Amino acid sequence: MKKTEYPVAIRELIAQLRGMPGVGPRSAERIALWMVQARGEQPDMIARAIATTRGTVRPCTDCGFFTMETLCEICSDPARVVDQLCVVEQATDILPLERTSAFRGRYHSLGGRISPLDHVAPEDLRIGPLVERVRGGGFSEVILALAADVEGEATTNYIVELLKMLPVTITRIAHGLPAGGGLESADELTLYQALSDRRRL
Amino acid sequence: MKKTEYPVAIRELIAQLRGMPGVGPRSAERIALWMVQARGEQPDMIARAIATTRGTVRPCTDCGFFTMETLCEICSDPARVVDQLCVVEQATDILPLERTSAFRGRYHSLGGRISPLDHVAPEDLRIGPLVERVRGGGFSEVILALAADVEGEATTNYIVELLKMLPVTITRIAHGLPAGGGLESADELTLYQALSDRRRL
Repeated sequence: MKKTEYPVAIRELIAQLRGMPGVGPRSAERIALWMVQARGEQPDMIARAIATTRGTVRPCTDCGFFTMETLCEICSDPARVVDQLCVVEQATDILPLERTSAFRGRYHSLGGRISPLDHVAPEDLRIGPLVERVRGGGFSEVILALAADVEGEATTNYIVELLKMLPVTITRIAHGLPAGGGLESADELTLYQALSDRRRL
Repeated sequence: MKKTEYPVAIRELIAQLRGMPGVGPRSAERIALWMVQARGEQPDMIARAIATTRGTVRPCTDCGFFTMETLCEICSDPARVVDQLCVVEQATDILPLERTSAFRGRYHSLGGRISPLDHVAPEDLRIGPLVERVRGGGFSEVILALAADVEGEATTNYIVELLKMLPVTITRIAHGLPAGGGLESADELTLYQALSDRRRL
């Protein structure tokens, strides 16, 4: 007995939608059927928005954040502090930091972290451009804001080695107890870091 | 202080993606950033698959199921039973029924159900074409497979009134205890239906 299926265009659409992060087979089918049946222009506008974004958004040449120009709105903002540079792994780490309002300087996204297991070597990252940028001068402090895990630490250490000869203060964001977290829910390593990095009050 | 945001193309994409069913603000942002950063062609293929589906998939002129031709694969399959017609609310109800393998006839999707609150009147549905199709002859049984709720029941009753003068057996799918459901988890109306529609063994 022949199994009834959706037409090939719908099956192809479902397969493609499953590639999106967080979208499983059920969601992909639900979204695809909505796209087929929608009476308005909404699905067509989604397709156009994807194409527009793919065609117009690029990394800022200085920091790597998303922009539709050469420089992003952070790097081209004359009101920002110019002598502090915050190094992050990904362009997507920048907006969460911006939302804290705790930093008003410039950023530098590496495009990842050193990870031999994933075949990511230092030369695959924007570490060379970082050293050039710091050597170019003007920065009094470089803040390393990488992940608090093995690969983040390794990348931090690698960068410290490269930058420590330059006349710039190198700092790292604090590792310790997360906001709202009690001691009983913190793991051993977090507590060790929290104790080691204790502050005088 | 100026709030840093994504470039307008990304914000527009996030807003559009939020229109998809089951996609909230966090998922939309996650999908959009994945689309911006993906190195392969996948996001572009999604955009093309949406456009292709919107341009090529249409309702089958007979039953309303999805097709890229005039008739869907069910209506154009000569191996199927030709004298049984199963009436459903939506084209999306057809594949779940097909998966049961319990029915091998033809379908007729109404495109909704009568719902005064949503301003859906009988003439907004494919009820006229249903009556024509049944009057055209060849069907010995019309199976009404609409939802077991107030509007589904009202639509079922409305159709029964129109079809009962025609020389065709009219049936309705059973309402009762769902598979795997115990009596203690069934609501009063379900139990009432299950008792009323009891079968002789």
